[in-house]
Amino acid sequence: MIVVLGELGGRDEYSLVEALKEGKIHKPVVAWVSGTCARLFKSEVQFGHAGAKSGGELESAQAKNQALKEAGAVVPTSYEAFETAIKETFDKLAEEGKITPVPDIKPPAIPEDLSIAIKSGKVRAPTHIISTISDDRGDEPCYAGVPMSTIIERGFNVGDVISLLWFKRSLPRYCTQFIEICVMLCADHGPCVSGAHNTIVTARAGKDLVSSLVSGLLTIGPRFGGAIDDAARYFKDAYDRGLSPYEFVEGMKRKGIRVPGIGHRIKSRDNRDKRVQLLQQYAHNHFPSVKYMEYAVQVENYTLSKANNLVLNVDGAIGSLFLDLLSGSGMFTKPEIDEIVDIGYLNGLFVLARSIGLIGHTFDQKRLKQPLYRHPWEDVLYTK
Amino acid sequence: MIVVLGELGGRDEYSLVEALKEGKIHKPVVAWVSGTCARLFKSEVQFGHAGAKSGGELESAQAKNQALKEAGAVVPTSYEAFETAIKETFDKLAEEGKITPVPDIKPPAIPEDLSIAIKSGKVRAPTHIISTISDDRGDEPCYAGVPMSTIIERGFNVGDVISLLWFKRSLPRYCTQFIEICVMLCADHGPCVSGAHNTIVTARAGKDLVSSLVSGLLTIGPRFGGAIDDAARYFKDAYDRGLSPYEFVEGMKRKGIRVPGIGHRIKSRDNRDKRVQLLQQYAHNHFPSVKYMEYAVQVENYTLSKANNLVLNVDGAIGSLFLDLLSGSGMFTKPEIDEIVDIGYLNGLFVLARSIGLIGHTFDQKRLKQPLYRHPWEDVLYTK
Amino acid sequence: MIVVLGELGGRDEYSLVEALKEGKIHKPVVAWVSGTCARLFKSEVQFGHAGAKSGGELESAQAKNQALKEAGAVVPTSYEAFETAIKETFDKLAEEGKITPVPDIKPPAIPEDLSIAIKSGKVRAPTHIISTISDDRGDEPCYAGVPMSTIIERGFNVGDVISLLWFKRSLPRYCTQFIEICVMLCADHGPCVSGAHNTIVTARAGKDLVSSLVSGLLTIGPRFGGAIDDAARYFKDAYDRGLSPYEFVEGMKRKGIRVPGIGHRIKSRDNRDKRVQLLQQYAHNHFPSVKYMEYAVQVENYTLSKANNLVLNVDGAIGSLFLDLLSGSGMFTKPEIDEIVDIGYLNGLFVLARSIGLIGHTFDQKRLKQPLYRHPWEDVLYTK
Amino acid sequence: MIVVLGELGGRDEYSLVEALKEGKIHKPVVAWVSGTCARLFKSEVQFGHAGAKSGGELESAQAKNQALKEAGAVVPTSYEAFETAIKETFDKLAEEGKITPVPDIKPPAIPEDLSIAIKSGKVRAPTHIISTISDDRGDEPCYAGVPMSTIIERGFNVGDVISLLWFKRSLPRYCTQFIEICVMLCADHGPCVSGAHNTIVTARAGKDLVSSLVSGLLTIGPRFGGAIDDAARYFKDAYDRGLSPYEFVEGMKRKGIRVPGIGHRIKSRDNRDKRVQLLQQYAHNHFPSVKYMEYAVQVENYTLSKANNLVLNVDGAIGSLFLDLLSGSGMFTKPEIDEIVDIGYLNGLFVLARSIGLIGHTFDQKRLKQPLYRHPWEDVLYTK
Repeated sequence: MIVVLGELGGRDEYSLVEALKEGKIHKPVVAWVSGTCARLFKSEVQFGHAGAKSGGELESAQAKNQALKEAGAVVPTSYEAFETAIKETFDKLAEEGKITPVPDIKPPAIPEDLSIAIKSGKVRAPTHIISTISDDRGDEPCYAGVPMSTIIERGFNVGDVISLLWFKRSLPRYCTQFIEICVMLCADHGPCVSGAHNTIVTARAGKDLVSSLVSGLLTIGPRFGGAIDDAARYFKDAYDRGLSPYEFVEGMKRKGIRVPGIGHRIKSRDNRDKRVQLLQQYAHNHFPSVKYMEYAVQVENYTLSKANNLVLNVDGAIGSLFLDLLSGSGMFTKPEIDEIVDIGYLNGLFVLARSIGLIGHTFDQKRLKQPLYRHPWEDVLYTK
Repeated sequence: MIVVLGELGGRDEYSLVEALKEGKIHKPVVAWVSGTCARLFKSEVQFGHAGAKSGGELESAQAKNQALKEAGAVVPTSYEAFETAIKETFDKLAEEGKITPVPDIKPPAIPEDLSIAIKSGKVRAPTHIISTISDDRGDEPCYAGVPMSTIIERGFNVGDVISLLWFKRSLPRYCTQFIEICVMLCADHGPCVSGAHNTIVTARAGKDLVSSLVSGLLTIGPRFGGAIDDAARYFKDAYDRGLSPYEFVEGMKRKGIRVPGIGHRIKSRDNRDKRVQLLQQYAHNHFPSVKYMEYAVQVENYTLSKANNLVLNVDGAIGSLFLDLLSGSGMFTKPEIDEIVDIGYLNGLFVLARSIGLIGHTFDQKRLKQPLYRHPWEDVLYTK
Repeated sequence: MIVVLGELGGRDEYSLVEALKEGKIHKPVVAWVSGTCARLFKSEVQFGHAGAKSGGELESAQAKNQALKEAGAVVPTSYEAFETAIKETFDKLAEEGKITPVPDIKPPAIPEDLSIAIKSGKVRAPTHIISTISDDRGDEPCYAGVPMSTIIERGFNVGDVISLLWFKRSLPRYCTQFIEICVMLCADHGPCVSGAHNTIVTARAGKDLVSSLVSGLLTIGPRFGGAIDDAARYFKDAYDRGLSPYEFVEGMKRKGIRVPGIGHRIKSRDNRDKRVQLLQQYAHNHFPSVKYMEYAVQVENYTLSKANNLVLNVDGAIGSLFLDLLSGSGMFTKPEIDEIVDIGYLNGLFVLARSIGLIGHTFDQKRLKQPLYRHPWEDVLYTK
Repeated sequence: MIVVLGELGGRDEYSLVEALKEGKIHKPVVAWVSGTCARLFKSEVQFGHAGAKSGGELESAQAKNQALKEAGAVVPTSYEAFETAIKETFDKLAEEGKITPVPDIKPPAIPEDLSIAIKSGKVRAPTHIISTISDDRGDEPCYAGVPMSTIIERGFNVGDVISLLWFKRSLPRYCTQFIEICVMLCADHGPCVSGAHNTIVTARAGKDLVSSLVSGLLTIGPRFGGAIDDAARYFKDAYDRGLSPYEFVEGMKRKGIRVPGIGHRIKSRDNRDKRVQLLQQYAHNHFPSVKYMEYAVQVENYTLSKANNLVLNVDGAIGSLFLDLLSGSGMFTKPEIDEIVDIGYLNGLFVLARSIGLIGHTFDQKRLKQPLYRHPWEDVLYTK
């Protein structure tokens, strides 16, 4: 027995019609060409896969079914009757002894799709990733539970979003504004520092924005950009252990470590850094407590007694005030503060801020259409 | 009813004993302290989680069970009898009308573990990753089907492994040796080129090896290291389209594109590049066909008629010979060769090779204990 | 003649004293041990390099000078007299005919230091770097000419700093606030997208913040994050060429390019994206012109006639409104706008914004102390 | 006096001719149009900057000079005579009292070019970079003093080049072959490890080869790939301090550190790792001393007494044998070996080796045309 399930479109079924007419086929043929509902549509309609598009009259399903029937095939009146037609033809052949029925094999169960099986509770799959800061599964992404549209509607600023994604809570506006000030102060420091330099070299090698940015970011670490985090760590440790400025500074000296956050190339006791003064003023006006910053100022008083340029610099001001933000806001437990300082969130702040500058340098070099950089031979000491 | 399942170690159960003795507990207590098999061991043995370590006699499970029993708790003779003891106590309380039994709830079926469900064919999970070059699931990883130990036993070299992992086939030794020669020739080009320079700057920022290497790698692209791939692409296109050297060179000129692989700072017709000559010699001795390289030489002949230093350089020699390797080896179909040239395998070769140099520069700067690099202000034109 | 210039500390000079006493030295010795001013200090004082620390009496400079004199060396009374003592001894030897004086050689002039030579105008050195966005040479860094302290004093926000460093001008507040809104909307999109995923994997490999961030940033490109820039480019091109929405959309279809900025997984005509609505509302309230956005809405109207979910999405809204910002603000010339769109500033905006999220994911994984990620074997189709 | 120096091409000089003819100019005009040698060439020739291209007769220099002369300008017969003509006209005007000569100002000396000033020894510029491993200033680059062509001629292999660029010396072949074996063994470990996974994700984001490679490399660190270096460090420390395997292993346990280089997922005492055996065999056959490896084996003997799978693994074998290479070759001093182990050269070896695999995975994904990867939501635990 030959079972044929055809489709409107194409002319393959007519070969079968020919073969039947010419008596080349001896087995009974049960056939159905689907797609006759195409008649219901005004114009051509696409069914199923590419190619099965209804064409002229001759290719229509009805025409094909008609031709097959006329050539001697068993053609049911509808698709629903197809199964019965097959069974009847089969039974007839068996009855006539033309075929020997074999016992039915139980087909293997089709495995269930994982997602369905999980939903129905039949299967549990361990998750390999845990994430707590944002969720993108719903209508719109949420940052720490706050939907994006709320963020716009409430007039949040960039500092607020940093607060949600890094600290998982909405810090008061005076805190998020302080975070923004830090970002702005650290956004760039000219083209000569390691980060900007590498970004410039990569941009001039004709590379894309991300590669240029990244090549510069990779220089950020202990020696470039690391002083803010270090300042926070050392000031916190010294203050929390109750060290006097003298004990702190001399202890660092004994260990051979420069006090981070102290010292400036040109600023001095009588030529204070305006940025530091503005930061301190902001904190005095808005922060409930500035105990860490005041400790840093005491340290500065002691170091100024040693040398005139050992002033509290921007790194030290940011580092100490960040401690005051964490501890004064009352929104963090002690272990949380320790964890934040330990992980090094200020490093994140510096990295984010400096990305603004590094992206700017990339755009700058591209605008200037600068060619491939090659460091001058004369500036290199080739030795053994 | 209070059910207690204790553990040897610790003294918590004795508080219960006290409370029972003092009559503070009115409900029946069914208790069992596990871990009595500890007696079977010579010395202290660790059971379960941290802290549950058998200590002195008093803390042993037996002592505790004894004390609980004496204080009036129902203590079975073994853990196996614990369930029965609970049931009996419960039934007794129900009988006495002290508690009202609630009908049993059928606990939900515990979902099957995903890995078991997949193995038993109940669930099918789509894979999200396809990979064809190596397999790490067996006893030892295989590269394109070849186990690692075979690679050592057969005396494979680095070129052979590149062949397996990049081309998924074992190329003849003359090919893999040629690949090695290319790697060696491209391994370094001094400290002044973009890649080495950025690596040096990052190493001097005190960053780790990977960051230093990566910061340099990111400069590799169209202007730095890209000439080899470009040479292969343009030579292939020109040769396959049957362009004469004149047509090729003049066509490039019209499009404003420099012919890659041609031209050298100091080398010229009468002062040939020894490396190019050695590469050509190697190919003449080992390659079954050098038609692409010969085409490159014809191009060189034409460009030399225009300027004395427009010689075939190392990039051009490698680029054209790589085409001869692919097409002459007979191990690649035409579409495969097109795909390899299109994807840019030679870029991979350059990147891998130069990594040797960039890693070397990182080690060099670390050995030399070089401080943070800052580009000199005097070398920068600050403008608008 | 032997000339000896010793140092207090150490006992080397006493070997010479012994040799002189034993008559092993036949040439005249002129000697001076410096550091006798050590006597003036109360305690030990460090002179010169490590090791030259005044020790006991025997090692003091005075003692050594005394011993040398007693052993027969010519020892002057002070360091100032050392030169004369050498000259006298030399002249005496010459007079006695023991040595033959050679004519004086004129020492080569010491080259001038580069910085001094440049300042005095004797030498000009070409600069190898050009930079126009910021200057760090003065008291405090300037962004596009604006000193950092001014940025704080005037209450600038992050958008203003982006404006200065990327566009080299102070855009009006409605523009910089729009930039901030875009940054906030693009800051994160959950842990499953390529960028966050790679960052999470790297953080779980125990790597530092920068490496983790960078590993994620590198996935940003044509397929991830690229739609905003593409939307701006295609909308600009279509609008500027005066294409009707029909011509634009059908033209894209013919080229086989999906219209970027159109289409959403779940949003539709009757379930609009609130974020898009808020962006449009903001622009309507603040922008002098929204012609590009209106064009995008016309395109949306056309695509909605084809399928219900072909709505203008956030990418399309940001892309088209960014064009309105550039062209409506009146602060950019036409070639400047073309350059900005060509370079791809919106890509910079996405990269900066998403850095907030990627840094957040790094902190998240570190807080969660997640172990090394290994992709499950079951999720990989190993094939040939 | 008006002095005019014109150029062939353009028609600007004719405006002057007109003005002279119309008597609009009262001052004497001294003029010369350069470029008359254009007559000597057959066709058009380009002189000077863009635009100055000789056109028709009228624009030729000769025609212009002729026209100026006819209009009354002083036109010399050659460019050489231009200066005299200016001087004569000036003197004449001064004589006639029409102008009052001002005393000559001595023009400032033109500063010398830096490179010339340095060569002549007048100026010394400090170098900002030191480099010792390679030199690209000559005919061909040298690796540690060995020219590239020598490297090919002598049949060096990749291990030899690593030796030159990392160790700055030619190690014996048995050493460089061992380095190659290590590179081959570490080249890949399937698609599931962090490095390959991130590379695959980045390649599927449609990013370039370097970005894909780099995104994977950045996961290499303490948890992924770090065991080899750690094994070398701990084995060296323990052996050099004379610790017995018992003291070493138990000391590590007390510090809570797993012994690196020991332990395998499936390998055990009775199912040894073939790779380890082949490495050991190679070393026994070629190394003059294998004391560190023998120590590692003693450690293994001790750990095997604790658990059956605590075998020496590939990391441990490479780590300990690398120590034997350094100390047994007799080519390194003790401080040099300490420095090499301290800097972490084995990390470099792993990074280089794995780059082969990561590049291979990038090619693989590009060949397979894999779409953007998105981690499945179902695999993430979203929590707080």
